[in-house]
Amino acid sequence: MTIGIVHGVGLGPGAADLMSVRADRLVRGARHLAYFRKRGRAGRARRLVDGMLRADVVEFAMDYPVTTEIAVSDPAYNDCLATFYADCTAHLATLAEAGEEVVVLCEGDPFFYGSFMHLHARLAGRVPVRIVPGITGMSGAWTATDRPITWGDDVLTIATATLPEAELTRRIRDTDALVVMKIGRHLAKLRRAVAAAGRTDDAWLVEYAAMPEQRVVPLAAAGKTAPYFAILLIHGQGRRP
Amino acid sequence: MTIGIVHGVGLGPGAADLMSVRADRLVRGARHLAYFRKRGRAGRARRLVDGMLRADVVEFAMDYPVTTEIAVSDPAYNDCLATFYADCTAHLATLAEAGEEVVVLCEGDPFFYGSFMHLHARLAGRVPVRIVPGITGMSGAWTATDRPITWGDDVLTIATATLPEAELTRRIRDTDALVVMKIGRHLAKLRRAVAAAGRTDDAWLVEYAAMPEQRVVPLAAAGKTAPYFAILLIHGQGRRP
Repeated sequence: MTIGIVHGVGLGPGAADLMSVRADRLVRGARHLAYFRKRGRAGRARRLVDGMLRADVVEFAMDYPVTTEIAVSDPAYNDCLATFYADCTAHLATLAEAGEEVVVLCEGDPFFYGSFMHLHARLAGRVPVRIVPGITGMSGAWTATDRPITWGDDVLTIATATLPEAELTRRIRDTDALVVMKIGRHLAKLRRAVAAAGRTDDAWLVEYAAMPEQRVVPLAAAGKTAPYFAILLIHGQGRRP
Repeated sequence: MTIGIVHGVGLGPGAADLMSVRADRLVRGARHLAYFRKRGRAGRARRLVDGMLRADVVEFAMDYPVTTEIAVSDPAYNDCLATFYADCTAHLATLAEAGEEVVVLCEGDPFFYGSFMHLHARLAGRVPVRIVPGITGMSGAWTATDRPITWGDDVLTIATATLPEAELTRRIRDTDALVVMKIGRHLAKLRRAVAAAGRTDDAWLVEYAAMPEQRVVPLAAAGKTAPYFAILLIHGQGRRP
């Protein structure tokens, strides 16, 4: 019997026709399909492939045991997630060892701040894993603003809003173009950091890029909260003939 | 008569099945197809869509008047390119104004260090332009290394090897994860900057990511030259449960 492959498949920023032709084929052909989701939710990755699946598909929903209930700094958070990832890995590896091909849905690009990375690290050396890159959420976001993110020699800094405020400020001061991910509850802090760096008027908030709810607002006009799928952008101003 | 749309279509990193479903449909349906290429070459973007085009497609090859023959710092370089982009813009706008849809092929993602940006800026306000984001060359590169680029709170810095050596060194010292684009003739300088930042052993050079000639080598083992399609990577080591 041949061992199966676990495919970590990038779905892109959130429109079904922005997944790659390779991803589209793998999703449509999948007999075994796995995906992460918040417990009690349908799951954004899973909803994106609605209507594309085989009639006999076998689904494996991987429900996060925690999202924001425990602080990331709490050791219990790490333990809880480590156990969860080990359990998911065991299930996927068992399928592959039984000769099954498994498609794991990954929002954006699997190797760019993705959850599948935690399974990939654990599956490596046990069963074969193949990655299909995807269009990142940030590409979806700068496309939504209808303006290029980088020109000429621009330096682009990509940071997460989870960083300490002073570190965010320093990073924003010291770059041409900027992308900030993982905003959620950190919007107020991020807003202060952008202001301290003197760049509020250059900053845009993009919510749900490439999805039907897509919304692009200047940071100065943004509300007090942002969804998890929000990305902050400052466009580069580099050389252009 | 309805005015046509100019579509700036991201092709992704270099494998035909890594373009998006939306890009694939636009390319296959295109009556007018435009693309940049180096004079005297077939053009990498054009070769990628070989076998996908309509029989009655009308092609518009946009041959760069210069690539490396004049220094970027020479005002003649800027003048020469500005005239070229204006001429290309005039042709595409005339087609759109005559009611034609035009597909412009863009390697990677159109708004990420792309040439189409120079046409987009000139077409804006004259004819409608629509952008299809693409998988970036850097996503192709980190996928080729089979390792994630960013974890947890990692900061990712994206820079071009055209920067001065001291600036490159400073940027490489001050980041968790790194992507360097536009290497070409700057490899020796980049190698010195990575060494000065003490990160030679963490650095990988990826040539022709996602293409048949794909090659991944530790920077320490890389040769003295790199092709234009080379990307340097340092992977982040951030938090992982």
